[in-house]
Order: sequence, then structure tokens, then C-alpha cells
Amino acid sequence: MIRIAANQLSPTMADLAANVEMSTTAVRRSVSAGARLVVMPELVLSGYMFASAEEARSLAVTPQHPVFAAWAQAVAEVDGVVVAGFAELGDDGLVYDSAVVVDGSGVLAVYRKAHLWDRERLVFTAGDAEPPVVETPVGRIGVLVCYDLEFPEMTRSLALRGADVIVVPTNWPLESPPAGEHVPEVVIAMAAAHVNHVALVCCDRSGPERGQKWNQGTCVIDQQGWILAATADRNGTAVADLDVSVSRDKSTADTEYGDAFGDRRPELYGAVTDPKDPDDALAAAK
Amino acid sequence: MIRIAANQLSPTMADLAANVEMSTTAVRRSVSAGARLVVMPELVLSGYMFASAEEARSLAVTPQHPVFAAWAQAVAEVDGVVVAGFAELGDDGLVYDSAVVVDGSGVLAVYRKAHLWDRERLVFTAGDAEPPVVETPVGRIGVLVCYDLEFPEMTRSLALRGADVIVVPTNWPLESPPAGEHVPEVVIAMAAAHVNHVALVCCDRSGPERGQKWNQGTCVIDQQGWILAATADRNGTAVADLDVSVSRDKSTADTEYGDAFGDRRPELYGAVTDPKDPDDALAAAK
Repeated sequence: MIRIAANQLSPTMADLAANVEMSTTAVRRSVSAGARLVVMPELVLSGYMFASAEEARSLAVTPQHPVFAAWAQAVAEVDGVVVAGFAELGDDGLVYDSAVVVDGSGVLAVYRKAHLWDRERLVFTAGDAEPPVVETPVGRIGVLVCYDLEFPEMTRSLALRGADVIVVPTNWPLESPPAGEHVPEVVIAMAAAHVNHVALVCCDRSGPERGQKWNQGTCVIDQQGWILAATADRNGTAVADLDVSVSRDKSTADTEYGDAFGDRRPELYGAVTDPKDPDDALAAAK
Repeated sequence: MIRIAANQLSPTMADLAANVEMSTTAVRRSVSAGARLVVMPELVLSGYMFASAEEARSLAVTPQHPVFAAWAQAVAEVDGVVVAGFAELGDDGLVYDSAVVVDGSGVLAVYRKAHLWDRERLVFTAGDAEPPVVETPVGRIGVLVCYDLEFPEMTRSLALRGADVIVVPTNWPLESPPAGEHVPEVVIAMAAAHVNHVALVCCDRSGPERGQKWNQGTCVIDQQGWILAATADRNGTAVADLDVSVSRDKSTADTEYGDAFGDRRPELYGAVTDPKDPDDALAAAK
């Protein structure tokens, strides 16, 4: 059982120094509250509403930036882990919308968002690697960033490769679902948790920024796909205690034979990785 | 725009003649109400709670059974389509948990459930073909049966191959979700509709049968993943008018560049069709 704290922070747009301080304070506060897995939003060090690619580049940092050492120091005392999003200046000179996994020893992994949402492609380069599953002191962490979640292949891939918990730093632009419904991203996260028998943490941001509002949909979801904790508050924190090792059992409760992974039929899923033009596919099927 | 009627029927267990009459009456009633896509539950001609494989075999019929001609006749007058589940006696002598697609001309396609739930494997043989996308008078229909829905590769595959609407005859055993939440299968269906920009119809059954109760979760879901119509009533019908051609537009509303399919990165999804042992995958990633 670990305590998870997902911090729905409101970064100060384009103020790296302020966000370094705010995020480090949030990690310390989460650790003080007993959390060993501390999550923060996408692009927590920069803000999201870039005026230009140049502005994003001016706010990008490398994984050697001292903020990550500060986070590492803060979680070291509980043998914990931080996952958060940041604008990454790559060693190739390109700028990525990345997420970092940090434990007490420092940076364990950096993942570069593979699916860029809308105008993000004008600002960032998309990552070219599959999302990582990282062995950490709190379990095997799979990492996605925001829109990646909307591609069920990504959550499936992480779960198949052994993730105990999928952590998703996000910036979800405000939507208005029908009365009584969750925002779409939460519905997608709940479905992904259920079909993969995997825990999932989505850490959204809060606060308007250059006119943009956010869903403030931060949530911790259990292996049955139900929301354990959430917060709609500006700068709120969703806190839950969760046994992530339950994710390793893919058998279906109350059945004799059901197994979420054992029941898969990968030989029938070829269209997912080798899509055809629909008209060609229909013609061939005749 | 077509009217869809999903009939949450309660078959009479092991009474083929009664279910032939009930289902044909339901098709006629739906057509009278203006529906051109008429959906009925999984195994509507037999019931679900088989005492043995022998009982299932005794209730299985071939696609040449006159009931399908009766349904065809009923929908012919509106150039409509019926999708429903039945226990199929295959020409190979095996028994399948199948779904049939019928239009005014007769049987267009039969799909054999590929993912058998729990003890169904003691009664049925699993299908070995990917689910079909069938050109019909009401659009391109993709077909799944019940538990198939819980494998997001299946909905994805159908949408990639051009389905306008995914139709899922089901028998969902009763569950108790947390207060305010849909049953898990509905959450999964909503997520699948949203991420694939595809319409989806789930037709559950009702009525206790040999002690088993059901979710009665029948619903019609639009291309944004929201529920257009549902019914929790015994023998209720979910009716909705829906433009299924909207499913052919995968661009994301209110964005400049967003496209649910154009944004995919199939080269990163290899684990979905070629899964490795998680421990081997983690070792290789080090």
C-alpha cells in the first residue's frame, strides 16, 4: 500500500523560477502528508499557453536542471517517487513535451509525449519512443502525457509491459460534459484501468492561464476502474492509499476462468498496428 | 439520420419457439416505431444460463433458420437492418456464440464471438475471425458480442476498418457500481465511442434467468461518447435518432489539427499485437 498525492497545481506562465519553487514546495508538502508517489501536471515548470515556439524553448530545461535534484532530495526521505511534466530541451536541440520520473537517487527516466494535441505540434517535437515502464521504489510506473491517454494502445502497451500504475501528467482544456457525466478524459481513464486491471493517476492543472480554463479533473483510479480520489479545487490535491501490486493479478474477480490478459486474442488485432484504408478493407472483405 | 431501437428483451430460457415469436414481434414493433436499425441481445433465441454444452447445442440454429427470414421480411419494408445474437450451429458441427446481421434480403453476415467470458468456454467454441464491418442500407455496421467490447483493440479495429456504428448484442451479468457511476461496460463503451469518433449501440437483456440478474444497461452512444438513449426497464427499448455518417469524420471539434486517427502512432503500438513477458520486457529496457 502506498499513498499517492496528485497535485493539481496552477503554474505561473513563463516564470521558471516561480514554478521551481512552487513544485518543490508541493513535493515537500506531499511527502509531509505521507505520500510516496507524488504527481504534478504536464508542463508544471513552464505553463502551457505558449505565445510561440520561441517562448517554449526559452522555458525548456534539461534533465540535469537542479529542480529535479531538489525533488529527489525531497522524496529521498520516504524512498518515494515524483512524476511530473516539463518542457524538455533535448540533447538534440529539440524541445519536447516530456514527463520525468525521479526518485531519491535522481532522474530515473524521461518520456517525450508521442501524441501532440492540436497546436502543440507548432511548439514541440513529438517523441519517437514507446512510453516507458520504470522500476521504482513504489512499483513499476508507466508514463504517459495528456493526449497519449486517448490512444488505448498506449495504456494497453504499458499494462502489457508490466506497469503497476500508469501516471499521466495532463493539462485538460475545459469541457462541459452532460449533467452527471465525468469529462471524457476521466471516462477514458476509468475504462483503461478497468480493461487492463491497472491503477491510473491523472494529474490535471488548475487556474486560468492566458484566458484558458481547465477541467481540474485530477483523479486516482483503482484497478476496477473506479475513482478513489479526485479534486476539482484550484491547487487541490487528490490523495489515495492504493495497493499497486494488485495490478499484477489480471484474473477477473468472481469468475472461474476470466483473465483480462489471458483472454486476449492478439492474432485478431492486426488492424491496430497495420491499418488499411477503410474502403480497401471493405472491398477486400467482399 | 436513422432511428435506432435497441430492444432489451428477456428471452425464455431454452424455449426456441417462444423466442422466435418474441424476437420477431420485437422487430415488427421497432419497425412500426420508425426504426431502421433494430438491435436485440446476445443469445436472444436461446437464453444464456445453459445447464450444459448439450443444452446449448440443442438450442443452436444455423443461419438458414426461418427466424432470420422472418426478421428480414419485417425490416424489408423500411430498408432496415437487424443485429442480434444467437447460438449458432456451425457447418463444422461446432456451437458458437454468434451475432447475425440481417437486412431485407436476408442474412448479410454472421460473426462468432472471439472472446468468451468465463464459463462460456465450456459451452461454446470461440470464433477465429476478426469482427466484420458490413455494408448495409443503414451504413457500415461493425459487430461485436458482449465481452469482445472489453478489448479496446476490437472497437479500434472496427473503427479503423470503417465502421459507422458498432453494434454489440450483450448479456451483462448484474454488477453494483459506486453511486452515480455507470456499469463498467457502459464506461468502456463511452470511452470507445469517444476515442474512435464512432457511434455505438449496446443491447443488453433483462429479466432474471435461472437466478441470474442483468445490468439492463442497453444504450445508444454518439460519436462524442455520450449516451443518447438508454433503458433500465425490463423489456424496455432504447430509441435514438442518429446520423451515423458523422463517424466518418475523425477530426476533433474545436481544434485546428486534431484528428483521432491521423494523430495515431501505430509504430509505437507493437506491444499490443506482440506482447512480451513483462519481466523480459523490463529487463530488455534496462
